[in-house]
Amino acid sequence: MATMTAAQKKAQAKVEYDAFIAACPSRKLLDRISDKWVTLILAALGSDGSHRTGEHCAGSPRPMRYSELSRLLAGVSQKMLTQTLRSLERDGLITRTATPTVPVTVTYELTDLGLSLHHLMRDLKAWAEENMDDVLTHRETYDTSHP
Amino acid sequence: MATMTAAQKKAQAKVEYDAFIAACPSRKLLDRISDKWVTLILAALGSDGSHRTGEHCAGSPRPMRYSELSRLLAGVSQKMLTQTLRSLERDGLITRTATPTVPVTVTYELTDLGLSLHHLMRDLKAWAEENMDDVLTHRETYDTSHP
Repeated sequence: MATMTAAQKKAQAKVEYDAFIAACPSRKLLDRISDKWVTLILAALGSDGSHRTGEHCAGSPRPMRYSELSRLLAGVSQKMLTQTLRSLERDGLITRTATPTVPVTVTYELTDLGLSLHHLMRDLKAWAEENMDDVLTHRETYDTSHP
Repeated sequence: MATMTAAQKKAQAKVEYDAFIAACPSRKLLDRISDKWVTLILAALGSDGSHRTGEHCAGSPRPMRYSELSRLLAGVSQKMLTQTLRSLERDGLITRTATPTVPVTVTYELTDLGLSLHHLMRDLKAWAEENMDDVLTHRETYDTSHP
């Protein structure tokens, strides 16, 4: 039996799954990944730590400790962070490694699958930052013409 | 005064806005666009209608009627669709045009700003469809090892 090429597999996947269809499992997956904490975690795990300097994150993905993630994603609750990380681990997007130090060091790292989504999430986060001014201007105009 | 290039403006925006910071307006914008209905609407408005054949959406963005969107986005409530469309219009991502037919024909179309986000949303939807099988396999493995 001939093996399908990656392009053929993708073409078939696009026939099999369609997120426009309510009952399609990919609709639920899309809902799952359409979440600001998922976006921020996946963007963070691929970052090289230079985001605060305004440079593009050109570095390779690196493992991050739970405490680092918690600090970087300002405002996330412990419960939300833990739940989101577990769900990303379950979906195969990140791996969790516990090192038996005292206390235990827990690190998270992107898998190859997670890396493929990281690129999209990084672009989504950058889109929000780069177009914020434009969106604010549009909102003012809209609110003036729709009193 | 020298005009900034697009690259310089983008660099400055990245310094000014950082969605990792809880109080940054871009965090709220990221939250707003991290929504499955936003993703599906923006993906739909740029589609050439060939999505059901499994072909890539290579066509140019086209206006869509409210009723078309409602049919394509199976399972969306009228209230949710109306609210999301209004919010996208307010943010400057789509335009709404009412043509005085009987009954009135209302169409929605991507703006240039919306088109820039459409590309990301189409890729996000495609990612969910193309990696659904992989994610399902990972979930089974995870559930077996975490009883």
